Amino acid sequence: MSLEARVPQQDRSRATRQRLLEAAIDCLATVGWSGSTVAVVAERAGVSRGATQHHFPTREDLVTAAVEHISSQRIDALRASLADLPAGPARVETVVGMIGEMYSGTMFRAALQLWVAASSDEQLRAKVVPLEAHVGREAHRLTVEALAADEVKPGVREAIQATLDLARGLGLANLLTDDSKRRARVLAEWTRMLEDVLTAS
Amino acid sequence: MSLEARVPQQDRSRATRQRLLEAAIDCLATVGWSGSTVAVVAERAGVSRGATQHHFPTREDLVTAAVEHISSQRIDALRASLADLPAGPARVETVVGMIGEMYSGTMFRAALQLWVAASSDEQLRAKVVPLEAHVGREAHRLTVEALAADEVKPGVREAIQATLDLARGLGLANLLTDDSKRRARVLAEWTRMLEDVLTAS
Repeated sequence: MSLEARVPQQDRSRATRQRLLEAAIDCLATVGWSGSTVAVVAERAGVSRGATQHHFPTREDLVTAAVEHISSQRIDALRASLADLPAGPARVETVVGMIGEMYSGTMFRAALQLWVAASSDEQLRAKVVPLEAHVGREAHRLTVEALAADEVKPGVREAIQATLDLARGLGLANLLTDDSKRRARVLAEWTRMLEDVLTAS
Repeated sequence: MSLEARVPQQDRSRATRQRLLEAAIDCLATVGWSGSTVAVVAERAGVSRGATQHHFPTREDLVTAAVEHISSQRIDALRASLADLPAGPARVETVVGMIGEMYSGTMFRAALQLWVAASSDEQLRAKVVPLEAHVGREAHRLTVEALAADEVKPGVREAIQATLDLARGLGLANLLTDDSKRRARVLAEWTRMLEDVLTAS
């Protein structure tokens, strides 16, 4: 096969893989862990069982790749939104809002299914824990950068960690009902409290 | 049957029911939602299938009762611990620590399994949502009381809600690894920030 013919085929293969991963995340977020079998994901992706098995021989392979995909997507999404920040006093408010976004929506729902499944599955836990630690570190680092926060100041490091923990808790509160109005009020007050910590001398 | 004979039997029946509910919570927290079948719970409780079916004819009945049991246990545990609070400056720290406790451990793990299962199960969601709203309101009310907080002051209501959301997020962070050291640091800083809001004029 010529190089010209191989490249598009690689592209197609990559696109198929991508479609399967996105279908896996979508499945996790909507039908939950136990409903997200290889067959269900393949059908949702519109990919044949054969092609699916070529990419992901087992459910474990598919899920692991989906975990990695979710992790890098969550970090990329945060990085992209933090790269384009307004200057001035609205900055803290904007950053807090973006972190709130990171822990709501489809990606968070899918990740939550994985965490909870991993809590009673040793093998899955062994894969999820290092990835989640990586996401946590990156989210923290990006937040510190975006806020130009001085972590040497007392309380600053903990207040930024608390921002991520709070957002995770708000994501959970939003799981079964639309909690967006209450969340907006909580995050507004949180922004004010965080600004106090960041600007304290 | 005489009244004397009936009463102990009622006691035994109540004790059996209680044992089944506690086994259900324990199962949810350790083997997760899909592993928590009626048969598994009955075996863990050491109760025969017949007696189990007498109390809970279907898995739905058992789970619903377990949800209610978890809810009232979580509130009772918080109420009991808040009833015996120290006075003085350590009060906020103690209350924050107790709320942190409420969202970690077996009860939180079991509740988390229910929330996540309910997110892709309409029937279960219909039962979990009102119970969870009740727990949320009670936890908020008890916290306001324990802190003698004045919710008319700007930000106080939201800061107390944030305390509960933060604790929920910390509970999630503690699901797959022991996060207790980091949690203690985050809650210490949060206590300081909350004290500022509560004492601001």
